[in-house]
Amino acid sequence: MSELMVYMNGEYVPESRAGVSIYDRGYMFADLVTESTRTFGMRPFKLPEHLDRLYYSMKATEIDAGMTKAEMETATLRMLELNRPMFGSGEDAWIVHNISRGVYRYKSAPESGPGPATVVIHCFPIDFPSFARFYTEGVHAITPSARQIPPESLDPKIKHRSRMAGQLADLEVARTDPDAMAVLLDRDGNLTENTGGNFFVVRDGTVMTPTDRSILEGVSRATVLELCARLGIPHSQEVLQPYHVLVADEAFLTSTPYSMLPVTRFNGKPVGSGRPGPVTARLLGAWSELVGVDIVDQALQAAFNRP
Amino acid sequence: MSELMVYMNGEYVPESRAGVSIYDRGYMFADLVTESTRTFGMRPFKLPEHLDRLYYSMKATEIDAGMTKAEMETATLRMLELNRPMFGSGEDAWIVHNISRGVYRYKSAPESGPGPATVVIHCFPIDFPSFARFYTEGVHAITPSARQIPPESLDPKIKHRSRMAGQLADLEVARTDPDAMAVLLDRDGNLTENTGGNFFVVRDGTVMTPTDRSILEGVSRATVLELCARLGIPHSQEVLQPYHVLVADEAFLTSTPYSMLPVTRFNGKPVGSGRPGPVTARLLGAWSELVGVDIVDQALQAAFNRP
Amino acid sequence: MSELMVYMNGEYVPESRAGVSIYDRGYMFADLVTESTRTFGMRPFKLPEHLDRLYYSMKATEIDAGMTKAEMETATLRMLELNRPMFGSGEDAWIVHNISRGVYRYKSAPESGPGPATVVIHCFPIDFPSFARFYTEGVHAITPSARQIPPESLDPKIKHRSRMAGQLADLEVARTDPDAMAVLLDRDGNLTENTGGNFFVVRDGTVMTPTDRSILEGVSRATVLELCARLGIPHSQEVLQPYHVLVADEAFLTSTPYSMLPVTRFNGKPVGSGRPGPVTARLLGAWSELVGVDIVDQALQAAFNRP
Amino acid sequence: MSELMVYMNGEYVPESRAGVSIYDRGYMFADLVTESTRTFGMRPFKLPEHLDRLYYSMKATEIDAGMTKAEMETATLRMLELNRPMFGSGEDAWIVHNISRGVYRYKSAPESGPGPATVVIHCFPIDFPSFARFYTEGVHAITPSARQIPPESLDPKIKHRSRMAGQLADLEVARTDPDAMAVLLDRDGNLTENTGGNFFVVRDGTVMTPTDRSILEGVSRATVLELCARLGIPHSQEVLQPYHVLVADEAFLTSTPYSMLPVTRFNGKPVGSGRPGPVTARLLGAWSELVGVDIVDQALQAAFNRP
Amino acid sequence: MSELMVYMNGEYVPESRAGVSIYDRGYMFADLVTESTRTFGMRPFKLPEHLDRLYYSMKATEIDAGMTKAEMETATLRMLELNRPMFGSGEDAWIVHNISRGVYRYKSAPESGPGPATVVIHCFPIDFPSFARFYTEGVHAITPSARQIPPESLDPKIKHRSRMAGQLADLEVARTDPDAMAVLLDRDGNLTENTGGNFFVVRDGTVMTPTDRSILEGVSRATVLELCARLGIPHSQEVLQPYHVLVADEAFLTSTPYSMLPVTRFNGKPVGSGRPGPVTARLLGAWSELVGVDIVDQALQAAFNRP
Amino acid sequence: MSELMVYMNGEYVPESRAGVSIYDRGYMFADLVTESTRTFGMRPFKLPEHLDRLYYSMKATEIDAGMTKAEMETATLRMLELNRPMFGSGEDAWIVHNISRGVYRYKSAPESGPGPATVVIHCFPIDFPSFARFYTEGVHAITPSARQIPPESLDPKIKHRSRMAGQLADLEVARTDPDAMAVLLDRDGNLTENTGGNFFVVRDGTVMTPTDRSILEGVSRATVLELCARLGIPHSQEVLQPYHVLVADEAFLTSTPYSMLPVTRFNGKPVGSGRPGPVTARLLGAWSELVGVDIVDQALQAAFNRP
Repeated sequence: MSELMVYMNGEYVPESRAGVSIYDRGYMFADLVTESTRTFGMRPFKLPEHLDRLYYSMKATEIDAGMTKAEMETATLRMLELNRPMFGSGEDAWIVHNISRGVYRYKSAPESGPGPATVVIHCFPIDFPSFARFYTEGVHAITPSARQIPPESLDPKIKHRSRMAGQLADLEVARTDPDAMAVLLDRDGNLTENTGGNFFVVRDGTVMTPTDRSILEGVSRATVLELCARLGIPHSQEVLQPYHVLVADEAFLTSTPYSMLPVTRFNGKPVGSGRPGPVTARLLGAWSELVGVDIVDQALQAAFNRP
Repeated sequence: MSELMVYMNGEYVPESRAGVSIYDRGYMFADLVTESTRTFGMRPFKLPEHLDRLYYSMKATEIDAGMTKAEMETATLRMLELNRPMFGSGEDAWIVHNISRGVYRYKSAPESGPGPATVVIHCFPIDFPSFARFYTEGVHAITPSARQIPPESLDPKIKHRSRMAGQLADLEVARTDPDAMAVLLDRDGNLTENTGGNFFVVRDGTVMTPTDRSILEGVSRATVLELCARLGIPHSQEVLQPYHVLVADEAFLTSTPYSMLPVTRFNGKPVGSGRPGPVTARLLGAWSELVGVDIVDQALQAAFNRP
Repeated sequence: MSELMVYMNGEYVPESRAGVSIYDRGYMFADLVTESTRTFGMRPFKLPEHLDRLYYSMKATEIDAGMTKAEMETATLRMLELNRPMFGSGEDAWIVHNISRGVYRYKSAPESGPGPATVVIHCFPIDFPSFARFYTEGVHAITPSARQIPPESLDPKIKHRSRMAGQLADLEVARTDPDAMAVLLDRDGNLTENTGGNFFVVRDGTVMTPTDRSILEGVSRATVLELCARLGIPHSQEVLQPYHVLVADEAFLTSTPYSMLPVTRFNGKPVGSGRPGPVTARLLGAWSELVGVDIVDQALQAAFNRP
Repeated sequence: MSELMVYMNGEYVPESRAGVSIYDRGYMFADLVTESTRTFGMRPFKLPEHLDRLYYSMKATEIDAGMTKAEMETATLRMLELNRPMFGSGEDAWIVHNISRGVYRYKSAPESGPGPATVVIHCFPIDFPSFARFYTEGVHAITPSARQIPPESLDPKIKHRSRMAGQLADLEVARTDPDAMAVLLDRDGNLTENTGGNFFVVRDGTVMTPTDRSILEGVSRATVLELCARLGIPHSQEVLQPYHVLVADEAFLTSTPYSMLPVTRFNGKPVGSGRPGPVTARLLGAWSELVGVDIVDQALQAAFNRP
Repeated sequence: MSELMVYMNGEYVPESRAGVSIYDRGYMFADLVTESTRTFGMRPFKLPEHLDRLYYSMKATEIDAGMTKAEMETATLRMLELNRPMFGSGEDAWIVHNISRGVYRYKSAPESGPGPATVVIHCFPIDFPSFARFYTEGVHAITPSARQIPPESLDPKIKHRSRMAGQLADLEVARTDPDAMAVLLDRDGNLTENTGGNFFVVRDGTVMTPTDRSILEGVSRATVLELCARLGIPHSQEVLQPYHVLVADEAFLTSTPYSMLPVTRFNGKPVGSGRPGPVTARLLGAWSELVGVDIVDQALQAAFNRP
Repeated sequence: MSELMVYMNGEYVPESRAGVSIYDRGYMFADLVTESTRTFGMRPFKLPEHLDRLYYSMKATEIDAGMTKAEMETATLRMLELNRPMFGSGEDAWIVHNISRGVYRYKSAPESGPGPATVVIHCFPIDFPSFARFYTEGVHAITPSARQIPPESLDPKIKHRSRMAGQLADLEVARTDPDAMAVLLDRDGNLTENTGGNFFVVRDGTVMTPTDRSILEGVSRATVLELCARLGIPHSQEVLQPYHVLVADEAFLTSTPYSMLPVTRFNGKPVGSGRPGPVTARLLGAWSELVGVDIVDQALQAAFNRP
């Protein structure tokens, strides 16, 4: 095998030939729900939690994968197993589920409605070099001029792919600072999330993150809150504004590929000392213990060949 | 040739094999702009206007098709010409442009950023039976519980494909009435558009349509306004609420495939007399003259073999 | 006859015994639409326009009076005729239509839904002394702290009786200035209407009134706009804020009982010169001509026995 | 006695002749506050709590009943006692208080302001058949297109009767599903309440209900929270969106007549298993114990003659 | 010394000659952050907390005082010491910090940007007579028609001086009741703060204050919450509306000069009994103990020569 | 005379000693209204229009300058005349009016309220080099993350100095692009104005500018609209979003010092051709004719010694 294999509706297709029809509703209308799961030491992390959320997204959007959650889990693990030889030592997998509402029928046929769902499950090596330096230098966060799509229009708690707004936010932010990530405000100027992750601040020893009104309820976010509980770190979900970041001692982002990244600048101003902070480090350490992988070292080694 | 041919980045691929990579940003992030143009008598209607809008959408989203507008027009006409034999008498073509930001590179490479845009141009026969009966019976419009994505989040004047919200609106509305189309309200309860078209009311002889704040500036909408000017029918762009529909004498929708459809019920209540109205008919007649095709007859014949 | 007679579902009842059941939905849920029409010289003013609006209100709320518009007009005129002897010289009538959804059935019965509508039509002498002095002194307008109920909750273009909010606004304003009327702002701080009438400003010779988004489309308001057109006075419908009143030369209110009243103070600050203005006077004069009654004199005579 | 007797300003009037003047401000302007209390075994449930809220509503609206709270309680109990013979075995009473600002004076009189308040207290048998089946089948909840009247316009924590918006919401929802109740969203798309009750979800063992910003602080709602505390069930008040219902294990409504009703569908999608859930049942059981009446059995017997 | 001395950029200037340039950005653009601290027995109360907030305000606005926090504290204490002889027995000082972005350069010069910050520190005797009577009579709170500037425009957690809106609110309120203070609502009708202080209600023994979204995080507010914790009084931060004040048992304001003032009327209606309440008194007593000064007596003596 | 002289409450003070008290309400609370007028050829341009607006601002804020408008004009012209010798050939004056509510009295005195207004009138040479290059290169416009202060909080049609928000917007924008000016969006994402000027787009030959809801009604803006009328250029006031700028052929800013500046980039994307456009040039030419000064040449000469 010289290529990653992609699960597509029960079949395996080499990555280079894995495509969806131009009539697939996922492509035509972004009518598709998704999940991203990573492995640690090639073991999927919280796959059941990701699949729970996937099935909630399907319920909310009335997409029917035609598979039980158990079947989805089995297919996922088999796909991963099949691709195991393509991963080198120290590498880990980013697993993607994409379930679209199926194929659009432009010819009116007796059977109305869309065809059966298109189920795609695939994986590829996590791109550590794209974020490794942020563990030590910190990432910059910038609030773009556009506002998060509000839940009364399309709830971000559904993990969907109607994400052009996020792409435009990232582009706007990158013009200001190529090392920055876009953290969106909601319509009332409250902090929400970045495109693909959640946002946290640490103030006077308390870890705070926006409430779930206008965000995806991240599995990584939940992991941080669990680790706080385990470590006895006070934590809460709050309605936060940019000012809270400026008076915070630390800030960080959470997302599946990197788990946690310290945020050291916010809209161009230093957060706390302007350096990654001790609470962030402590949580990253606890997470590494939890999964048996030194999260930071793995990324740094992959990126710079250094521990 | 036994199959429609699809233009994909300069090549022609049979429809059944026309697919985009699962790494295409159009599929991954709905990071794609689009246009829908139809033909009348197999001649494209207002193709330059559609391409103008396509290039504005690209400018607004910083997607670069790598082709001039003239090249895009030439490619479109050639694609249409190539597929000409697949269209029977009385048939017309729905032409689609989909331009995505290209392919996502999950392996960090020296060259950063996305690959070149993916340009897809294709066409297929307009599905007249799916809407023909509405010309005579009128279509029902229903406002779903969700609100239009506001322009400060993602401007609907960009013709994009982050349309899951619209799909969910259509599903909600179809549960109430299978013959209904979803007409969305904005956050302030003002009328915006349906998923794929614009909305008009006629009151005391004046044709009114929502201002362009929260809608796509439809080419069909512009055509109606032009026809009003030509016919001396008073017309204006207004901030409208559902009440305006209930006190209207007529209402109609405009969209590329059907040009105009009378709306005879709104949220379950009759609009005007509850029958398609004379101003709607007059405008449809003028449009038919403009394009040299009897728009209603063509659809009725295709659907019911009747003039 | 020693008492006004009230039309109730086809019968005539003396005013002192005219009551609705405590189970009437108009009383229980304010589930009722209404109109107020006045007479000039005991001739109803624009009764057809008021009935048009009444039937639009019924359509919007799905209340069915069980009478055609023509029958409603006949009943109204008969009720007025019957009460004619109760009106003295110089008096005019305030005619009220109240159509509720009928009687609530607390006992589940085979026939579900509410009973037939309760139709009440009555009249009483206009209380000129309550507003006559404002023609010469001007009325004071104050914006209360509460905001107009927005059209996405209950459209003020429906003339309904869910008016507790208006009562509370009037009470708040009266605490500040007993001569003041409440002019409500909408949620964005734009001017809407007073409780029972519409608001106008005159700036540099142009008569401006809020657009119909968050107001009742007053018949008196329409009359003013018609008179402007007839007199060649520039006029427009605009999105207005309190600042516009402060820079205006004049302001006035319109409502059925008083037609027009000059506004001379706004939130405690003088409007223009702080005196009723010439455009207001000119429009009132034209209105008086239109109806053949000197509107101001009639009120002043009734209140102060002076012309 | 062959008829229920209604308390009206200190007198008792048979139900069939109990009416309010067409000049009563409760009828004219919905200028009225209200309470609904029920009995269990003909003993009023939490009457003091209902009267506390009634007096807060009066304070907020400056309506003065002219009676102390103790006098109101005495009058209520006497009215109930008087009507006791009209209730059969297994029946219970719905007690209504309606206090309007009194009678509108259209004739300007030396005494300004409204007349004394109109105090109406009455009762009638609870209509168990209208909701009994929902205990076992569950009720369907649907969010209508209109939004809850916001507290800055008219605070729903005041129990008033300006309820036309709620009536229209119920009508819209009934068109979609006759077994559904309308649960309104606020302007931001957050869940509020149904017309006449409160909404709860159960997720991972925690009972959650919307915060009191845009709802009536229901006495039944408070009872559920008290029962949760007593039973050791985690509970909280949260800002909730429709997505929360879709991921919930259970949902239920609370209101005076039915105490609690399981919600089994939400906007057409099943809630949890699509069947009434165990936490709902446990709370209903505890409530039954609290009042010494089997709440579900009473309703089922009354409706179907079955235990 | 016959005059108070003002610290201006390191120098001391007599109060009567202490002025800022008309080109100072603090005067030109309100481009200035500020703090107000008081003394008890001429000892500054929580000066470090005030300076922390000052430095956060500077960080948020990118104003650089050119002094460390320690230097600022030293300068403050020296300024106070210098002015000590000007304060009589029983008097206390109001200390003001004003840090503007420096002087505007209207001549384009090689060095771009503003000049160094203008640092002004001064003090004057607290004007006890202006508020002393409110300790015993209570102050009246009124919500003006304008809304608090929202945090997405200018976060009130920054202590700045762009306060014209507050001045206008105070003027509007004073027209209604000269003894009233303006308590602003936010755009959603939630309670925020008064111009210069925070707002609290006491309901059923719990002390509640608005969350920090649209307010300054007052040092006095924090002191009340600390005193509650110390005294075992339940307390929370909530999203509150005017209705909450009307159903409260007590309400009070907190601000640096007066620490706490009971609120006895709200929008003209009595709060609780309409008299200062016991929880307010208890907290004021605890505060007096904390600072070793009887806060109420000091003010009453200064104002009325009575204990 | 070696220094500019400043009018302060009737006296003339050399610029270097012109200061306001630290107790001036203009400094303490930004409780101040203002105007900026420029000269062309040392003749004030539209001084009466600026003074009209100044007096409207004073009326709206209840600041009383203690001078009639005629007295203010006389004082202005005298101040300008006095400073005439300080202006060289080719120079022009920027005239500033600052009227604050007077001096804050921290000592409670018999006379309550603020002292008389502080009236400052001064002028200085327009700093042409700071913007001259933008006439030929175009200026860049960027929308910052914060939103315009809404009119329901503080109406921007009042020309006040509570401008910290604008300063912060300019700083944020300058971090992205030092050649950029901040153009603020309102809360709904509509375009408003830049800090100190108005914004226009030209599309298909029509000149459009935002309606006056959330902007200052600029005198320069009015001049452009007048010039359009004179030149027969179609023009309108519209609700505009960022998308409108991207599809525009031209855009420009208007403000007192520079009259008009072409905008060639918007949020980093070229406007139209990315070069100053012909309609902008034509309007600038007409303006130059109107005032008898070649506006562009004057600035270029002053900045670069070139015509």
